[in-house]
Amino acid sequence: MKQASIVTIGNEILAGLTVDTNAAFLAIELQNIGIPVVSSYTVGDEIDAIVQKLNLASSDADVIVVTGGLGPTDDDITRQAFAKFLGVELELREEIFQRLIDFFKSRNIPMPEKNKVQAYIPSGAEYIPNVGTAPGIIARNEGKMLIALPGVPWEADKMFKFVIPELKEFAGTQAIEVCRLKCFGLGESVIAEMLGDKMLRGRNPLVNCTVHDGIITLHIVASAENSEKAIQKCREEEKKLREVLGDLVYGSGDETLAEAVSKKLALQGKTIATAESCTGGLLSKMLTDISGSSNYFNYGWITYSNKAKITQLDVPADLIEQYGAVSEQVAKEMAQGARKKSGADFAIAITGIAGPTGGSEQKPVGLVYICVDYDGGCDVKQCFFTFGREFTRLRAAHTALNMLRQRLG
Amino acid sequence: MKQASIVTIGNEILAGLTVDTNAAFLAIELQNIGIPVVSSYTVGDEIDAIVQKLNLASSDADVIVVTGGLGPTDDDITRQAFAKFLGVELELREEIFQRLIDFFKSRNIPMPEKNKVQAYIPSGAEYIPNVGTAPGIIARNEGKMLIALPGVPWEADKMFKFVIPELKEFAGTQAIEVCRLKCFGLGESVIAEMLGDKMLRGRNPLVNCTVHDGIITLHIVASAENSEKAIQKCREEEKKLREVLGDLVYGSGDETLAEAVSKKLALQGKTIATAESCTGGLLSKMLTDISGSSNYFNYGWITYSNKAKITQLDVPADLIEQYGAVSEQVAKEMAQGARKKSGADFAIAITGIAGPTGGSEQKPVGLVYICVDYDGGCDVKQCFFTFGREFTRLRAAHTALNMLRQRLG
Repeated sequence: MKQASIVTIGNEILAGLTVDTNAAFLAIELQNIGIPVVSSYTVGDEIDAIVQKLNLASSDADVIVVTGGLGPTDDDITRQAFAKFLGVELELREEIFQRLIDFFKSRNIPMPEKNKVQAYIPSGAEYIPNVGTAPGIIARNEGKMLIALPGVPWEADKMFKFVIPELKEFAGTQAIEVCRLKCFGLGESVIAEMLGDKMLRGRNPLVNCTVHDGIITLHIVASAENSEKAIQKCREEEKKLREVLGDLVYGSGDETLAEAVSKKLALQGKTIATAESCTGGLLSKMLTDISGSSNYFNYGWITYSNKAKITQLDVPADLIEQYGAVSEQVAKEMAQGARKKSGADFAIAITGIAGPTGGSEQKPVGLVYICVDYDGGCDVKQCFFTFGREFTRLRAAHTALNMLRQRLG
Repeated sequence: MKQASIVTIGNEILAGLTVDTNAAFLAIELQNIGIPVVSSYTVGDEIDAIVQKLNLASSDADVIVVTGGLGPTDDDITRQAFAKFLGVELELREEIFQRLIDFFKSRNIPMPEKNKVQAYIPSGAEYIPNVGTAPGIIARNEGKMLIALPGVPWEADKMFKFVIPELKEFAGTQAIEVCRLKCFGLGESVIAEMLGDKMLRGRNPLVNCTVHDGIITLHIVASAENSEKAIQKCREEEKKLREVLGDLVYGSGDETLAEAVSKKLALQGKTIATAESCTGGLLSKMLTDISGSSNYFNYGWITYSNKAKITQLDVPADLIEQYGAVSEQVAKEMAQGARKKSGADFAIAITGIAGPTGGSEQKPVGLVYICVDYDGGCDVKQCFFTFGREFTRLRAAHTALNMLRQRLG
């Protein structure tokens, strides 16, 4: 089985100034071709250090994918390091140079002199056509395949697609398939206990568990002699996990809670409006992350002040006076107001204290009320989130989406 | 000078299922203590593979910081790998066990049996008190310092702070200081050309350039015999860069465009309202990411449909009919409506086609109109963004904030 190693190049990555997102997406893409990543290295912008890591990666794996250092500035030296590793010279490629000239011409920008250096690649190597200004590099060396991609994530993403057919051919006939279940509502260790020995190491399929912003992802990784059998194994395991977890599972693949909700809304032909206080637009942003959201989302209010709640959502002033803006009563009125004004089938209201200031003994930072209002009733939830402003806002928005999901059934 | 190496543990990281954000924040924290990161490794949940990477990291550096694999599930084996690397046994620590029991008791949750394993650490090692359920580990081995932290980012962050005094003592008297300038409005290579040989490698201070969502960050890294002198070097370089870049620089450090704008609003005692169509709440979310935003932000409207624009922001229906919802005229009316209804000093409106569908020949996907309305006039900008829905929404929100920043002066 062919394996891959990833080498990420850049002082800004090593120094933590930029988070390396390329290693993650490349690992997923490579896994999908049946070339699992077995090691990953990060190295600064120094030729000899890069060559050293290329040697390490070469001894780990058959495919080495490098990102970063293909830009036009003086700290971009991946081209030189590749040439040194391969023991060849850099050479100017006229067709790359022409593509660069065309790139700037099409944008009506004069080409900076600095960019010419991007038209050089190691002698004997192929180039991957640039989508930004940086072309990529493909080279073969002692039975290994070396690929260099730009560090800019969307460029690396688009340009990697170009190499996939060649990589598939190189990988031969292996099959690893991964499917993912997305859960919300309980913690990682509770879910792990529910699943018991399904999460043991060394199994095939293997079940891994990751958590991000309260969303638990179960990764089912199955291998078999061909893709169909591996998919079959994934599907069978998925069915078993769903039986154990029930309603905790909201979706699969890369699905977000907003996407799960939007599917249900679209299917049922229903619409949703939002009334946000402490989340300040985050819930609406999540709902409109999805293309086509105008089919079910049309109206949102961010009513950060009491006056905004009173004038825009018709929340009675005396109710705020009596119970405070962060209360079950006000959450209900906000949701009802949003539903009435928008004519939507559902409305979600969120009011809370995101912090770090603004809390009191009775109403501490992290206290949030969420209301889902609909024809015939409303669901209200009192939540208490710890761990800061961003955490509280994210969890509040996710909890609101999950309440709507459960109401939609 | 002491140096550090980071080892990230987890199949989910190696497989790309989770993006490794810990390596980045740890590198920054370590840099700030004067211990630059010189290498970084990612490895799966396999004891021998982890031990091998610990050996590699040990030969690179004096401080090895490991994250991940301290959870309660069967794939969490960092404890075992640490013990094997150190050549000692794991032992149950009563005080850690008691902290775990207390942790669950304070949350009124019965402690799952699985969590007991987290109370074991290698014999002779110290523990770092848990903030979630996982305690960390500190061990000394052949003059090197080994630190294990949980993979959950906020836990790792809080627990690393606990180790800082010990690390500072270990580092001795080195001084590296980093300051950052944040720019918006032009591309990376144009800025690099403006800066010329200030970006050459090997300089002290060194200037690195990174880009994220159109925000260009210039990192000035200075080293000197003490912190004061290093800071002085940073400050002098910063002044020179500011002279060259002028208004392109909107802030420093980790400052976001929203923070830069919010400072100006607070300083001038002005308020802002928002009227969003294609950004669907993102601009408001950015403004309310900031604690204390209720001082200058109170009202926001998300008017995704024509009817919402007409009923909530008093945009004349015939104007939409004549020019379309994505037009300079409608952007102006939305902003005026939001400013009138909110009584705010400024209002920003954004209307556009985020895509991927909904475009036409006259109005292609990526076309966005932004208007900043104020007493005495308005600024309107027609933008054309490529590269997809998320990109378009982010750039539109950032461009809107930058327009407001420039208007505030």
